Formats: sequence, C-alpha cells, structure tokens
Amino acid sequence: MVQFVHPSRDDITLEGVLAALSDPMRLRIVKSMVSRHGCMSCTEAAPCPEMAKSTLSNHFRILREAGLIHTEKKGVEHRNVIRQDDIEARFPGLLRTILGFCDEPHQGKD
Amino acid sequence: MVQFVHPSRDDITLEGVLAALSDPMRLRIVKSMVSRHGCMSCTEAAPCPEMAKSTLSNHFRILREAGLIHTEKKGVEHRNVIRQDDIEARFPGLLRTILGFCDEPHQGKD
Repeated sequence: MVQFVHPSRDDITLEGVLAALSDPMRLRIVKSMVSRHGCMSCTEAAPCPEMAKSTLSNHFRILREAGLIHTEKKGVEHRNVIRQDDIEARFPGLLRTILGFCDEPHQGKD
Repeated sequence: MVQFVHPSRDDITLEGVLAALSDPMRLRIVKSMVSRHGCMSCTEAAPCPEMAKSTLSNHFRILREAGLIHTEKKGVEHRNVIRQDDIEARFPGLLRTILGFCDEPHQGKD
C-alpha cells in the first residue's frame, strides 16, 4: 500500500513552502486547487494536459513534502486536497499574497 | 573588471524571488539588509561569521540574479543594496509578508 509522507503542521517551514512554490507549474497547480476547493486527482489539477505523468507526480510529491497538499489513495487514483488551514495557521496571509501574483498562467512574460 | 548581472525590474519573476528566498541563510541576509538599509559588504551582511567566503558569495549571486539585490565593486569590496523598490513595484507586499515570518534567526524550530 502506498504511504504518503505529510509533515505535521508544526513541521511546515517557510523555506520549504517557498521552495515548493518557486516553480511556475507548481504555482498553477496550487492556484487551481485553492480556487476549485475539494479533492482533485493529479490529472484534474494538472497545469497542462500534455504534462508527463512522472513530472506531474514529482510536482505533487514536492508540494506534499512541503506541507502544501494532502494526498490519499482512493482506488487507483490519488486524491489531493490543499492544506490551506495548516498553511494559514503557520504563515497567515502568505499563500494568498503569493497566489495573488500568479493570476495569469504565464505571468505575462514567459 | 567584475561585471555583475542584474535583471531589469520587469525581468524579476515571482518564481525567481521565491527560489532565492527559499533558503534560511538568504532569508537572513535579506532580512538584515532590509532592516539596516544602505550599502553592505558581503561580510557585513553575512548571516554568521564562520560562513565560507565562497558560500557567502554564492548566496549573494543567487540573490542578485533573482533581482533582490544590486551589487557594485568599490575598491576591493562588493557593496550590496537591497532592490526593495523594484521588488515592491513588481510584487507589492511580498517581501514584507515573507520577511515577517522570519523574525527569529532559526524559525523557532531548527
């Protein structure tokens, strides 16, 4: 059985969260999860449909290990939820501030 | 003559800033530069006195390339200033929000 590693709320670090969000694809995944709420499979939260499954999986692992998402295996799917309450408790306003700067998929310049 | 590479204001990216700040030492360097204002040599802004010069130099390069600091060579020293206006213009409130979470040198847990 797949065991996912999730840091406890107190083990979520500022550096870890910033590192996890320092990638445009992961920013888009988190933005999409925050705006749509609820559980999402990796595929549903994918920033672009052509992304390789292994790449997507790696992005989700980084987000999970930083404490940004919680993953559970449900049947053949991995269901992900954003740990918004935990992040907000640790770093109030941080996620909202950062996501506020990535409204456009490509930051206007890429 | 040493030429430092500085991105223009418009070329400063959210991902680059987050990546540069995703390290506890660089967070402390930036925090120290913001709170003390003015020019600082790499040594003055060093988060700990025993840090190797090459390590310190690498941290400053990453901060410079992300657009967080501006470096000039003055004699034998490199003088650094925080590009607070540029960062604020690109991402209003971001630096203040992030630095607000790193008041303690070790984030209370390390």
